[in-house]
Amino acid sequence: MELSKPTLDRMNENLLYTTLGIRLEEAAEGRARARLTPKAEMCWPFPDQPHGGILFTMMDTTMAWAVQSLLESGYACTTVDLNIQYLAPAKGGRFFCKAWTSHQTKHLVFVRADIVDSEDHPLAVGQATFRIIKMDFI
Amino acid sequence: MELSKPTLDRMNENLLYTTLGIRLEEAAEGRARARLTPKAEMCWPFPDQPHGGILFTMMDTTMAWAVQSLLESGYACTTVDLNIQYLAPAKGGRFFCKAWTSHQTKHLVFVRADIVDSEDHPLAVGQATFRIIKMDFI
Amino acid sequence: MELSKPTLDRMNENLLYTTLGIRLEEAAEGRARARLTPKAEMCWPFPDQPHGGILFTMMDTTMAWAVQSLLESGYACTTVDLNIQYLAPAKGGRFFCKAWTSHQTKHLVFVRADIVDSEDHPLAVGQATFRIIKMDFI
Amino acid sequence: MELSKPTLDRMNENLLYTTLGIRLEEAAEGRARARLTPKAEMCWPFPDQPHGGILFTMMDTTMAWAVQSLLESGYACTTVDLNIQYLAPAKGGRFFCKAWTSHQTKHLVFVRADIVDSEDHPLAVGQATFRIIKMDFI
Repeated sequence: MELSKPTLDRMNENLLYTTLGIRLEEAAEGRARARLTPKAEMCWPFPDQPHGGILFTMMDTTMAWAVQSLLESGYACTTVDLNIQYLAPAKGGRFFCKAWTSHQTKHLVFVRADIVDSEDHPLAVGQATFRIIKMDFI
Repeated sequence: MELSKPTLDRMNENLLYTTLGIRLEEAAEGRARARLTPKAEMCWPFPDQPHGGILFTMMDTTMAWAVQSLLESGYACTTVDLNIQYLAPAKGGRFFCKAWTSHQTKHLVFVRADIVDSEDHPLAVGQATFRIIKMDFI
Repeated sequence: MELSKPTLDRMNENLLYTTLGIRLEEAAEGRARARLTPKAEMCWPFPDQPHGGILFTMMDTTMAWAVQSLLESGYACTTVDLNIQYLAPAKGGRFFCKAWTSHQTKHLVFVRADIVDSEDHPLAVGQATFRIIKMDFI
Repeated sequence: MELSKPTLDRMNENLLYTTLGIRLEEAAEGRARARLTPKAEMCWPFPDQPHGGILFTMMDTTMAWAVQSLLESGYACTTVDLNIQYLAPAKGGRFFCKAWTSHQTKHLVFVRADIVDSEDHPLAVGQATFRIIKMDFI
């Protein structure tokens, strides 16, 4: 299912995203896009460069939304493992992540993602395995 | 070199650490330990459970300090890639990370790490490759 | 369950192992050990150094046996993903792998492994996620 | 540099490739393609399915050739680490691998790869870090 604009808006109000400066822009059909406008306190040890853990958090959550867009209502996903490569220093004021699913089995979904800067230079790439979980309480 | 208590204290004042709730406790001879006391805003989507990206950030930075403890003055390190596995939900109010180096070559250092909860149950494990860089400006 | 000596002997007769030069030595309680005595044809592009893919195969299968030693009869396991780091060139005539499980959930098992040379120098380290599968036909 | 047909032919005669059933088909401009026609002895524990270590070996070597195609004469590359995900059982008599570089720095090259069956279904995906080494003796 595609995440509707109101769902995106509501989701983007979560405190993790607002504290870190992440915003999900789109999630549909196994693909998702997000942007990071890093806060100064997330740029350490190099000023103006978001820490690799912040890039990871954008990648991991964007992957999760790509997976979620494939799932039926009542199901969610959780990261089993993620491998991230840092290709180049994260310079510039805005960063973008694209995630797309490679394959889905009954219990697992495999995902890849790229992070680029505002000039589309690759900064980080990743691949991850997510587990599908039933959310009985939803 | 072992990080002295004043160095640890000064380092722990960085805004990334204070915003996320991470504190480096020790770093010497290729090993490092840190603790995470997560802020409420880092616990999403599950209340009281720090996001996997926050655990990753603790793991990545603790690994970096384990590497740094092996380097001579004037050298620093940067993450090339990191593979993290999430073994169990991160429940409880405090989390601990231990990192230790596996091997060092001229340009690269290989590191492993574990994250456990306050009862020593394993929550996440990781392995990473770091690159040694010369810090001319230091 | 521990693999009995006759089971080990029978298992070690599989053609993959005899062609590559791998021999499982022990598997019990989530731990397994194997040795590699590489054939000349597996040493490429460097003579006397087994290819990284041969080391990987020893690591992957030794991990699988560590997992298998935890499972009840009628269950097997399959590799979901594996991350391997090559620390140093694989020199010498014999190589040893130890694998041990980090954690088991209902459907998944997390494993780590080391490969060392005959002087116990570390050559490769890895971590992997395995999926437990039901073998109805066994 | 692109690998010429005679170079490919000569390279494909190495004993690792002929024993495992791998054949490099093309390598140029940071991309490479190979095929695997697995021998029966490489299909274990499931008949007709090449072991995951054989798929890994195809992926690792194809990635290496993608990297090599970017390097000047006198330089070679070696795998630092590789993360492989197994998406589906490897059924069918032929398998194909494509590898492409993500980014190159002074000392490192980042690569991705896919393995598919003869109907182009994805079976495995991977990403790896390679180190560039000077081959003084060549």
